[in-house]
Amino acid sequence: MADKRRDVIVIGAGLGGLAAAKLLHEQGLDVIVLEARDRVGGRTYTKHNDVINYVDVGGAYVGPTQNLLLRMADEFGVKTYLTNKVEDLVIYRKGSSRRFRGSFPPMGGFLAHLDLLQVSRVVDQMGSEIPEAAPWNAPHAEEWDNMTVQEFLDKYAWTDAVKRFATGFVNLNVTSEPYECSLLWFLWYVRQCGGTHRIFSTSNGGQERKFVGGSQQFSQHIARKLGKDRVFLSKPICQIKQEQGTVNVIDIHGNRYQASYVISAVPLPLQSKITFDPPLPTLRNQMIQRVPMGSVIKTFTYYSKPFWREQGYCGSAMIDDDDSIINYTLDDVKPEGGKPALMSFILADKARKLCNLTAEDRKQRICQMYSKVFQTDKALHPVHYEEYNWLAEQWSGGCYTVMMPPGFLTKFGKEMRRPFDRIHFAGTETATAWSGYMDGAIQAGERSAREILHRLGKISENQIWITEPEHKTVQPRPFETTFWERNSPSVGGFLTFLGLVSAVSSVGLGVYLYNKHVQ
Amino acid sequence: MADKRRDVIVIGAGLGGLAAAKLLHEQGLDVIVLEARDRVGGRTYTKHNDVINYVDVGGAYVGPTQNLLLRMADEFGVKTYLTNKVEDLVIYRKGSSRRFRGSFPPMGGFLAHLDLLQVSRVVDQMGSEIPEAAPWNAPHAEEWDNMTVQEFLDKYAWTDAVKRFATGFVNLNVTSEPYECSLLWFLWYVRQCGGTHRIFSTSNGGQERKFVGGSQQFSQHIARKLGKDRVFLSKPICQIKQEQGTVNVIDIHGNRYQASYVISAVPLPLQSKITFDPPLPTLRNQMIQRVPMGSVIKTFTYYSKPFWREQGYCGSAMIDDDDSIINYTLDDVKPEGGKPALMSFILADKARKLCNLTAEDRKQRICQMYSKVFQTDKALHPVHYEEYNWLAEQWSGGCYTVMMPPGFLTKFGKEMRRPFDRIHFAGTETATAWSGYMDGAIQAGERSAREILHRLGKISENQIWITEPEHKTVQPRPFETTFWERNSPSVGGFLTFLGLVSAVSSVGLGVYLYNKHVQ
Repeated sequence: MADKRRDVIVIGAGLGGLAAAKLLHEQGLDVIVLEARDRVGGRTYTKHNDVINYVDVGGAYVGPTQNLLLRMADEFGVKTYLTNKVEDLVIYRKGSSRRFRGSFPPMGGFLAHLDLLQVSRVVDQMGSEIPEAAPWNAPHAEEWDNMTVQEFLDKYAWTDAVKRFATGFVNLNVTSEPYECSLLWFLWYVRQCGGTHRIFSTSNGGQERKFVGGSQQFSQHIARKLGKDRVFLSKPICQIKQEQGTVNVIDIHGNRYQASYVISAVPLPLQSKITFDPPLPTLRNQMIQRVPMGSVIKTFTYYSKPFWREQGYCGSAMIDDDDSIINYTLDDVKPEGGKPALMSFILADKARKLCNLTAEDRKQRICQMYSKVFQTDKALHPVHYEEYNWLAEQWSGGCYTVMMPPGFLTKFGKEMRRPFDRIHFAGTETATAWSGYMDGAIQAGERSAREILHRLGKISENQIWITEPEHKTVQPRPFETTFWERNSPSVGGFLTFLGLVSAVSSVGLGVYLYNKHVQ
Repeated sequence: MADKRRDVIVIGAGLGGLAAAKLLHEQGLDVIVLEARDRVGGRTYTKHNDVINYVDVGGAYVGPTQNLLLRMADEFGVKTYLTNKVEDLVIYRKGSSRRFRGSFPPMGGFLAHLDLLQVSRVVDQMGSEIPEAAPWNAPHAEEWDNMTVQEFLDKYAWTDAVKRFATGFVNLNVTSEPYECSLLWFLWYVRQCGGTHRIFSTSNGGQERKFVGGSQQFSQHIARKLGKDRVFLSKPICQIKQEQGTVNVIDIHGNRYQASYVISAVPLPLQSKITFDPPLPTLRNQMIQRVPMGSVIKTFTYYSKPFWREQGYCGSAMIDDDDSIINYTLDDVKPEGGKPALMSFILADKARKLCNLTAEDRKQRICQMYSKVFQTDKALHPVHYEEYNWLAEQWSGGCYTVMMPPGFLTKFGKEMRRPFDRIHFAGTETATAWSGYMDGAIQAGERSAREILHRLGKISENQIWITEPEHKTVQPRPFETTFWERNSPSVGGFLTFLGLVSAVSSVGLGVYLYNKHVQ
């Protein structure tokens, strides 16, 4: 026997699915949410215990231009706090640490400095050619999609320092390796987050703030608002049948649900979990095999005191060392100053290599690296350690989000948001701004909800996609660049210039000598 | 209520799953096979109707060194027949057709000829460094895995003709594009089929023969042998629970089955269809997201007479034309000469681009190309058309087999055959010879069955992997190469040589002129 017929069934009680259900519920529709896990929140998960109080082992950060997430925080009265009150970062390279400020660390030489300016400028320039909602329509879409990011770096980055930094940048932002990713997809990803500075920065960027109490609260608030008879946990869906204007949804326990529409708000590769009757359209059937989730283990190492702050550091560090299992740290002290911790990610190949160690082993290696980076033995004496291995999560498949290997975005990308009869698609992967983030999850959830409102005749087509007004207090500032930063030559250009100067000098010398001897 | 407890449950009644079940059944074990489709055979599917009699719209070919498949044919009394009785092939390029014989077509110029020799030699030489059972242990494994085949071609192929031919070779053999595939994976794939000549050739190669009556017969024979109470159709599995030495398997209808062991014989990406309790190990959870199935539509165009044979052609053609939706044809006349047809594949990007056309549109385009290739209007008047779009198949995900994007084989490959507690893994993707083919499916199925016999103490560990003796009549011949073919220079080498000759000549001339004038 099927449950009573609903207007809409949302599959997945992550932030995106719940945002969709919330909007539909507010519009008076009868909506239920079916979740595979025994909790809401998906890739946001705030772990609680006595030692740490709480910690976001999943999605955590928010920054300017993430207006949908900031709006939701206001609505539920969730406060944000700055990740770094002051910025005093560290770059650790070749065994030594150096303080810096700004988005990117010093590269350790004039040529490498030029090189970094050039590469980041090229990434942003190329990104600016890519339409956020349709990267496959970019003028060079196929050419860039058929290359890996590694090929781009081999071509455009001249110095080893910048190649290494860029690899870390890719690892950190898309939890993948440069040789795995389509260049087009990566350029699109950086672009739809606002560019290289916005995506990477703490202050004025994607990691500027965290939520007091953790990010899972949003999902919990929405679930409470919907009520227990609308959000069902531990219900992995295994079958969706569409027939005669009705969608039948069946879970692995044999429970049956009916609705006029379905919103799938699960990560794209997890749509493979479901048997579709009729089967998925041709390209969607293959697309969901071609968008694997990234690889990351998120770690938190707790200390009795925030020794890095005592040394004047903010706790942000970049680590350029092949032997290090982490390449990035952030302060994770609670807003009122308690439970001092450093957060680090174990990323991409390192996560795959080290996931079979014990947590104790990983903790040891991280502490040893912290002691080098912050130059103190205090780092060797943690009081507690938390980590979360997202690679092992059956109901996420990985984190933060999908990545796309070369060639697939231009051939399969259009399928991501294309409804399949009465099934519509949400999930942060289908967003056009901050895709891969909580903000993108809300955008995609609300957009999919409005697609259904439009099909029901409640709104017009041009009301499906709307722009969220800028948040009143958390506002983006432009990234200040100097004339030099905007106009510095590439390393190649600089070397050519040097070559010319030298050639001209030589010719001049030759002419001088010739004249001197002939006369 | 669960069905009675079995020794082994095999999931997937493709050839590999059935080969596993057959072996276990013959050893006296109680085994059942659960299949999602309403038929056995998986990616082998012999379609029957009055117009065509029968046709293999899936896997069809067999050749020397495929000893397991040839042994099975003997066992069931299935006869083979030659695809080409005589070889008189066509290469169509730039609007004109040219006859040829041998594995590879003429390249249309001396430099391109040198280039092809060199590139195929390099592919085979690199392949010979790659262990079939452990490609991740190859001396250059990471370096090659982190590159695409396209990068290799850009580096090693000098001429446009060879780049285009190589692209067609990749399309045809792995139903993917060169910019999508890991170089390591592709080199491994060609190697484990016996090299560039064995994989590509009709006579003496993978396409030498077909089965009288079609290839699905093997699965049907095994299913009959097992009996109706051991092979259950239309039972898509959605859940596997392992607890206390028992594996519980549950299908989407809620039926429950129990066994001591399970063999999963479904394509790797389709393992995502199943909810595992406990969940899959970390790396396997991510691996099954990283091995998409290839893209191919197999087509058959029927004519009243085999006009190509009347012109002295065997029906094999290679087509180098951007506007053509096919790049390869084979004769598909029945062994006794009836039901004349030409077979062609629509491959990789072309399959993705053209899958949304109507079948009638595809037929028209194919016939027009046949009329150009075989230079006759007779090709424009087919009497029947059959095609099979494997991209749309929910229970295969695509065909012929998985492909691997860059970077994944070295990081995730080891997981493919690693048992997960009481679940063992078959499927042609896990084979170490002719993986992707029917022969590989049998190898993997029988190996997984012997893994379980070993766990049951019935055989020793060194009896798990055994080598099939060479078939008595279908035997491989070496591919004859001339001294020139083995030792010709690369185009680069040749041009350098020319440059030296020319430089030496110039110097000589200079000396001569100098002497002449000075004296």
